[in-house]
Amino acid sequence: MASASIDKPDTKYLGKPRKIIDGLEKVVGRARYVADVVVPGLLHLRPVLSTVAHAKIISVDKSEALKIPGVVAVLTAQDLVTRDRTITSRSDAILAKDRVLFVGQPVVAVVAETEAAAEDGAEAVIVEYEELPVNTSIEAASAPDAHVTWPEGLPKGDLEVISHAEVEEKEEVESGPITNHYKTSNFKRGDVEAGFAEADAVVENHFRVGSQYQGYMETHGCVVEPDAVKGGLTIYTTTQAQFGVRNKVADILKLKRSNVKVTAMTVGGGFGSKYGTIEPLAATVAYTLNRPVKLILQRGEDLKTTTPAPATQIKIKLGAKKDGSITALQADIILDAGAFAFDFGQLTGLLLGSNYKYPNLDIEVNEYITNKTEMGAYRAPGAYQSTFAVESTIDDLARKLGLDPVAFRMQNLSETDDPMANGAPWPSLNIKACLERMAEHPLWLDQPKAEGEGIGFAVSAWPCALSPSASTCRIDGDGTVKVVVGSTDISGVSSSMVLIAAEVLGVSPSEVELIQGNTDVGPFAPGSGGSQVTYSLSGAVAAAAEDVKVKLLELAADQLEARVEDVELINGAAQVKGVPSSAIKIGKLAQIAESSRSSPGPLIGEGRSSIKQNAPGAVAHMVKVKVDKDTGHVQVLDYVAVQDVGYAINPMLVEGQIHGGVVQGIGLGLFENHVYDDYGQLQSGSFMDYALPRSVDVPNIEAIQLNLPSPQGPFGARGVGEPPITAGAAAIGNAIRDAVGVRVTEMPMRPPVVWKAIHEQDK
Amino acid sequence: MASASIDKPDTKYLGKPRKIIDGLEKVVGRARYVADVVVPGLLHLRPVLSTVAHAKIISVDKSEALKIPGVVAVLTAQDLVTRDRTITSRSDAILAKDRVLFVGQPVVAVVAETEAAAEDGAEAVIVEYEELPVNTSIEAASAPDAHVTWPEGLPKGDLEVISHAEVEEKEEVESGPITNHYKTSNFKRGDVEAGFAEADAVVENHFRVGSQYQGYMETHGCVVEPDAVKGGLTIYTTTQAQFGVRNKVADILKLKRSNVKVTAMTVGGGFGSKYGTIEPLAATVAYTLNRPVKLILQRGEDLKTTTPAPATQIKIKLGAKKDGSITALQADIILDAGAFAFDFGQLTGLLLGSNYKYPNLDIEVNEYITNKTEMGAYRAPGAYQSTFAVESTIDDLARKLGLDPVAFRMQNLSETDDPMANGAPWPSLNIKACLERMAEHPLWLDQPKAEGEGIGFAVSAWPCALSPSASTCRIDGDGTVKVVVGSTDISGVSSSMVLIAAEVLGVSPSEVELIQGNTDVGPFAPGSGGSQVTYSLSGAVAAAAEDVKVKLLELAADQLEARVEDVELINGAAQVKGVPSSAIKIGKLAQIAESSRSSPGPLIGEGRSSIKQNAPGAVAHMVKVKVDKDTGHVQVLDYVAVQDVGYAINPMLVEGQIHGGVVQGIGLGLFENHVYDDYGQLQSGSFMDYALPRSVDVPNIEAIQLNLPSPQGPFGARGVGEPPITAGAAAIGNAIRDAVGVRVTEMPMRPPVVWKAIHEQDK
Repeated sequence: MASASIDKPDTKYLGKPRKIIDGLEKVVGRARYVADVVVPGLLHLRPVLSTVAHAKIISVDKSEALKIPGVVAVLTAQDLVTRDRTITSRSDAILAKDRVLFVGQPVVAVVAETEAAAEDGAEAVIVEYEELPVNTSIEAASAPDAHVTWPEGLPKGDLEVISHAEVEEKEEVESGPITNHYKTSNFKRGDVEAGFAEADAVVENHFRVGSQYQGYMETHGCVVEPDAVKGGLTIYTTTQAQFGVRNKVADILKLKRSNVKVTAMTVGGGFGSKYGTIEPLAATVAYTLNRPVKLILQRGEDLKTTTPAPATQIKIKLGAKKDGSITALQADIILDAGAFAFDFGQLTGLLLGSNYKYPNLDIEVNEYITNKTEMGAYRAPGAYQSTFAVESTIDDLARKLGLDPVAFRMQNLSETDDPMANGAPWPSLNIKACLERMAEHPLWLDQPKAEGEGIGFAVSAWPCALSPSASTCRIDGDGTVKVVVGSTDISGVSSSMVLIAAEVLGVSPSEVELIQGNTDVGPFAPGSGGSQVTYSLSGAVAAAAEDVKVKLLELAADQLEARVEDVELINGAAQVKGVPSSAIKIGKLAQIAESSRSSPGPLIGEGRSSIKQNAPGAVAHMVKVKVDKDTGHVQVLDYVAVQDVGYAINPMLVEGQIHGGVVQGIGLGLFENHVYDDYGQLQSGSFMDYALPRSVDVPNIEAIQLNLPSPQGPFGARGVGEPPITAGAAAIGNAIRDAVGVRVTEMPMRPPVVWKAIHEQDK
Repeated sequence: MASASIDKPDTKYLGKPRKIIDGLEKVVGRARYVADVVVPGLLHLRPVLSTVAHAKIISVDKSEALKIPGVVAVLTAQDLVTRDRTITSRSDAILAKDRVLFVGQPVVAVVAETEAAAEDGAEAVIVEYEELPVNTSIEAASAPDAHVTWPEGLPKGDLEVISHAEVEEKEEVESGPITNHYKTSNFKRGDVEAGFAEADAVVENHFRVGSQYQGYMETHGCVVEPDAVKGGLTIYTTTQAQFGVRNKVADILKLKRSNVKVTAMTVGGGFGSKYGTIEPLAATVAYTLNRPVKLILQRGEDLKTTTPAPATQIKIKLGAKKDGSITALQADIILDAGAFAFDFGQLTGLLLGSNYKYPNLDIEVNEYITNKTEMGAYRAPGAYQSTFAVESTIDDLARKLGLDPVAFRMQNLSETDDPMANGAPWPSLNIKACLERMAEHPLWLDQPKAEGEGIGFAVSAWPCALSPSASTCRIDGDGTVKVVVGSTDISGVSSSMVLIAAEVLGVSPSEVELIQGNTDVGPFAPGSGGSQVTYSLSGAVAAAAEDVKVKLLELAADQLEARVEDVELINGAAQVKGVPSSAIKIGKLAQIAESSRSSPGPLIGEGRSSIKQNAPGAVAHMVKVKVDKDTGHVQVLDYVAVQDVGYAINPMLVEGQIHGGVVQGIGLGLFENHVYDDYGQLQSGSFMDYALPRSVDVPNIEAIQLNLPSPQGPFGARGVGEPPITAGAAAIGNAIRDAVGVRVTEMPMRPPVVWKAIHEQDK
């Protein structure tokens, strides 16, 4: 691990690599996942998923299913307490009503005493459909004669949208007849026509990016237990956002939100998907039956019925002068939203138009409804697609102008306070520093390449979301520091929080216990997405630890008969400064605080944080590839990932985030595609068909962390989760261009695509 | 319900009767008790209890038990991880080692996949004993030729003693040969010989008080789940003190206390018994096997193996002058401690010598070891026994001097700052006010009595324990106020905390949710015993609510563009004072706080309290009885209970506490006795034999609450849980004296005892 440190504070635990706290329990199989949850009287739910992409439901024959021993109930939408609810999104498409809109939509819920009986029951249900026309591509959906999926207009949802990055919402203007066109977003600045007129070179490309499945190890699942007295529910689930799931389920069932208690279990990967897709189904069934219900999706179900990333087309036109100054950017982005809309268009447009200083820009984003499952977030949603388009085109433009690709970018890259596509100034931003660091690397300087090999790079940035959060901290009588948070840990955030409390209180991290409280006892924290949770929570945990530190020092001063300012915390004890013989263990002080009437009370503190400004992460990724011209196969040989992490609270975990992001970037760039046929049938419905990168596909990864502190972030930290996935595909595309001289505009760049590009060039 | 209010603050919710928050779920059977807990792979534990009171264990034959299908393990002390631990108390007498000391001591643990298999297994275990001499009475244990149960001296324990009331510990002086005599405590003041010489009348009595079983509806039980990775345990249990159980189990298993997590389930009654008697057994077995284990005691086991109240003998001598002034008190108290010692002697002596102003006193308390289970706390331990002795004797002395029993007491009763037996001044104390109120009652003034009927009364006081505690409070986005505490609710304390938070924050109590956090997430709170938990916790909850209120008002002021001092909280909303149209719901403010970067962060507060001084409760109980001279049967006809509750946070629940205490006082006075034969066999080993009062035994109860605020207690509150049990038996004794002219000195005053007293008088 390489790590460049700038202005790193003098610390004992922060900023030092340290193992993840729950690593051992995961490795030995003792972590408790939702599939492990058992409650008394638990029933098992198996959904019957639609086998067709668009159809009227003519009839549901439950009779054979109900004969199967152990089957307790076979439910359709009419049988549920939500029967009168309008379906407006994937998560409240609890069971289809009259009509199915995509393959994989839940139609019937079979509930049984055992998993086997539920599965047999689901197989025995007979659903009769009357098939309707199907659109499974943007082209089909936008054709003039296309059938319209929502002939009366897309029904408006009332659910909270969970934010992945901060975007200033613009007023939406809609008019004209109802089609499958859902929404247009625009970003405009200056006069692009004049800009292109000024340009000495213009490049136009048309990129097609596939749909990607988040590929977590653990499928979606939950256990829902109703409380007949309080009228509420307890939900155990695998989620990135327990408060989000709570609010969504409560709103759907018209319950008071506090009557729903969500306990986020250990999460086996989320990557943007786990925000409550199936909890409404299980919760509604449990609530309807007033019995506890467990639903763990099978992989095939999970691939079909959850929310992959939207297929995206980007037409981009970029002009620059000979002196290297970019004059104009024009882009048309089209997103395949699936059967409902999740509003990623605006974010994609914003990201596309913000990394460089464009004097003139015109970006239009259009989103279309198709007969697929609703599209959702995949780690840095919109960023890897837009980066693929921009960085490929920048590269082409540099070549066309005969400019050095590093220097060309350095001249035009956005810096702090430069305007984003929407005109808002970038907060502290260091894309250039990342690129500078990358360009110093021997792989760039020496360009060691054999025949068929190429080196390429790309830069990107991610604005990061931000939300307030809170925490409590107490000192236990055995000396343990207990930190309670309401966040869910999908990437080691809890391990970082441990270091923060340890640093503030001067105790070993092994003496800090991070407790993930459910939505009842956990102080509020935002969902673990948008690269925000460490950024948001760190300040709250630090403040809570500081709060309890003040109380600890006061009590210690009283016990030591010293002034508070003369007391210090060292190695889990309080002592008169420089007098180790006076030391009292903090556990002993906690015991005094919990038992003595002379103390002011137990040692507990509370902290909250609300950061005012985003802390964007930036990356420069460089990759060396070997292209087999005969087959189109691309092998990644080497990978250098430079990232401005602001301040790595735990560099080992940041390194892990970078490695994971790089591997996913390789997957997106070369392998992963969620393919539907013209009937809306998912062709990539198993891991035999949906190709994730294997270990042999992953090269050596060199992760270089720049610690360029965010002025607002706790200890200077920035969001680190999403940036490392943004630039990989683009860098690979540029390396292929370097290796074989062709621009591949389709992602993933699978062998047939690359082969075809090479052969079209040869023609 | 009658309620006398003095200086009651102007409140909206506090001090108003309100239903208990968990009443409905208990009534309809939805409350979750430990018997309802299921965890994956749960095994069932059945203990084999000793059938003899003192014996060597010659052999244990496990072979037949191990043959029973489903039996997983048959364990003796040698098989446990605690095999090297010295047994020093009931709770660490996990399984007997070599020797059994009482009938009901666990000897073998049978663990099986089902409860039935565990029970069959336990029945199939053959334990061979070599019986040893047995002492089951104070007389036997203190005889010169008595066998000595601990010939090398009682081994010293290292477990924390859980305090039930604040007693200043005195230095203990021990010498002489080792006998069954365990401990002597003394309280002395002035010169009792001179005091008796001054007296115009002296009365001597010798009282014998039986042993009482706490008689809760739910037996002891727990589920223990080991965590093989963290090396710790999770314990679900029915307990009054989850932190106490945690610490005890951790210490026994040599675990870090934070590695044991205790979740206190709904408690079906505790009354001083549920402080961790059986959790060490279940935890040690679970930890040894590394498998989850459930142990729910059957009633017969519970009666034998838990910790009832000690049989107590009190010889008392009291002298007074004709003018009504008491001159001297002398008392010898002997306690039957059982096989281990729990140190109730000093408390009993303190209570006996503190309610009146004794110019001269000499109290000696001796505790003896016998072959019974360890004796423990029963609601107001030591108080009902000492009150029975003192109030009976005061009554006799008033008669002997021809003085009015009310006036005689009023002349001598202790008041605020008068010395207790140990010389420490009483904090704010109002026994006299209770007695004054009682003496105004028509039952006393009119004395409506028929043949065989009598009216008697007694007064008492209870110092109450006190410990620091803490709480957190947050406002949820749906407007719910969530209060998190670490206390366990055995008597409605949670319902009172709801009112406190509601009052501070100006919301309806129905909008407050009280969350009982386990030992990981619950802020520290003392055990629910010693009448301290409401007293201790109220301040912490009020402080936490005040803390969040400050933050709420700041945010509201910002949103309302007003000054903080111009904003008020009314009906769940913040508004500019007097401008209802400006109101913003607090849930809306919480949503802003959780989502807006312009807010300072989520609305969460923390509070702690450490009260410096006890808040004694005082009572005057008056009872009317009818005595059947032919049978000795005593029927209670009417009951008036006056109690200084300081400030009734929820008068309905205080009323419930008084009713419950009165009924238990009747039980103690007339029915309940844990009887052992000379072989140490429990004769009262079922509810057929151990007589609890039935509804027909309970008269109309008039509970009169005096609200004489404690200067230190939150809102003036005092401990209310234990006082109502203290005076009932004594009042009944005095009423019997009034009815039939005899002093009954044995408690319970069962028909044979009363009959015998009447007939001895007749002789």
